[in-house]
Amino acid sequence: MTTIGFIGLGVMGAPMAVNLATAGFDVVGYNRTPSKVEPLVAAGGRKVSSAAAAASGSDVVITMLPDSPDVERVLLEEGGVFDVATAGTLVIDMSTIRPDLSRQLAQAGGDRGLRVLDAPVSGGEQGAIDGKLSIMVGGDADSFAAAKPVLDVMGATVVHVGPAGSGQTVKAANQLIVAGAIELVSEALVFLEAHSVDRERAVEVLAGGLAGNAILNRKAAAMLAGDFTPGFRVDLHHKDLGIVTAAAREAGVAIPLGALAATLMGSLRAQGHGSLDHSALLVQIEQLSGRSASN
Amino acid sequence: MTTIGFIGLGVMGAPMAVNLATAGFDVVGYNRTPSKVEPLVAAGGRKVSSAAAAASGSDVVITMLPDSPDVERVLLEEGGVFDVATAGTLVIDMSTIRPDLSRQLAQAGGDRGLRVLDAPVSGGEQGAIDGKLSIMVGGDADSFAAAKPVLDVMGATVVHVGPAGSGQTVKAANQLIVAGAIELVSEALVFLEAHSVDRERAVEVLAGGLAGNAILNRKAAAMLAGDFTPGFRVDLHHKDLGIVTAAAREAGVAIPLGALAATLMGSLRAQGHGSLDHSALLVQIEQLSGRSASN
Repeated sequence: MTTIGFIGLGVMGAPMAVNLATAGFDVVGYNRTPSKVEPLVAAGGRKVSSAAAAASGSDVVITMLPDSPDVERVLLEEGGVFDVATAGTLVIDMSTIRPDLSRQLAQAGGDRGLRVLDAPVSGGEQGAIDGKLSIMVGGDADSFAAAKPVLDVMGATVVHVGPAGSGQTVKAANQLIVAGAIELVSEALVFLEAHSVDRERAVEVLAGGLAGNAILNRKAAAMLAGDFTPGFRVDLHHKDLGIVTAAAREAGVAIPLGALAATLMGSLRAQGHGSLDHSALLVQIEQLSGRSASN
Repeated sequence: MTTIGFIGLGVMGAPMAVNLATAGFDVVGYNRTPSKVEPLVAAGGRKVSSAAAAASGSDVVITMLPDSPDVERVLLEEGGVFDVATAGTLVIDMSTIRPDLSRQLAQAGGDRGLRVLDAPVSGGEQGAIDGKLSIMVGGDADSFAAAKPVLDVMGATVVHVGPAGSGQTVKAANQLIVAGAIELVSEALVFLEAHSVDRERAVEVLAGGLAGNAILNRKAAAMLAGDFTPGFRVDLHHKDLGIVTAAAREAGVAIPLGALAATLMGSLRAQGHGSLDHSALLVQIEQLSGRSASN
């Protein structure tokens, strides 16, 4: 049986690990806050008390952590994953981190005989629960083929997009589009309210045409209800947009709408809304338009 | 048999009128350039030589014209549609025009006993050909109910969104989201190219997650091929974004991304690209990023 060490059982990681256990994999979970391993244990997984213990003796190690420094520490620290994993182990980082760091980690892991992939995801908590994430994978083709049966349990769309770091680059593009789309939907919703249009019906018809997008389908109803329970927090999207703007700047790519969306997301966070769902961009457009918050 | 006068048989109007004729309606078509009525005639419709002739004796009159002044002239001029249509006639303007003009036309038509609806569409030429447009309808509920069997032939999503003008308001919101979404996809595509990612595969995975939108589904392939054959011309989207920004300004609504997208669309047009498909926003991001055009 394939043993999978799963490190990082947060909002996304927990349901992903549960799905792997349910699919019959031997899943060994570690999380800094130990109570978060309980759903995995309930699904038949095992609980360990360190990242190294999750990696020891595992065929596959998956990391799902908040930010670049977390991944760097867990993989590279003295006695960390790269020290204890045996040659040939697949190390799949599914966190959203800097593409340049993913390339460095692939190099450092390769030097030790490990097979390292960057495989960030999109689709949110519901996608993680349903096993229907989009997974964008960077790394070599053989490692991707080896990882595919594991990734298919967690994702509905699992695509190899290029060499190490490419998964993170595509995820950065994803986060640019998502932030911009939330902002556009927010602007449209405030515009419609100001003109006294039935917004529920408007969302229905907007979703059916060329304006159709996943934000209208999955988030507009909660936005209209003023429900900004995360979901995906402003804090994390703000972090991701820092990656996007830095990577665009390094490559000399102009992202006018992306950069403006990043500014607005940063402003929302600066006003104390970092722990709301990213769809709370609506609140800011309401403020900027002198309108009270939804409901 | 219901007779429908159809005025304006352009890229969108022609296939819409053809679908009505094919569905068994008696369709009487007028277009300023007479040759454009031929597809309707081939589908069993009739050709007349003036807007008034299309409206005379028709139970329903549909206008599908480029801009506000065109609609105003055809409906209100001496001997125009409002002069010759008999009381009770349904006048359905499916053009994209200013919401305030739609309200005025509904009032003026109502004063003469006509039932006027604003019913702009989204979905592009392909949606028109397939009879799968999204149609957003403003006007009173009885007139909407009377028009529904006709609109259902042309649209897959036909929604009554509110009183006169509401259809145009929702269409304005639609055009805001579409312009912004094309721009976001353009920024993402240039970003991915600059980082040497396989863009076809990236589009596949982006379309499957929270970044998913109709632009990725329907336009990204042509954009990657550098094919900007309209479709929907920059000139027309620029006109629509003028409606959006004016209507937002009047209502005091902040549309930061929408306004920036309008600026970029205007710039694209000012550089001589008005007759390209609106997805040519990609060309501008390539220029701004110092990269040669696609292909």
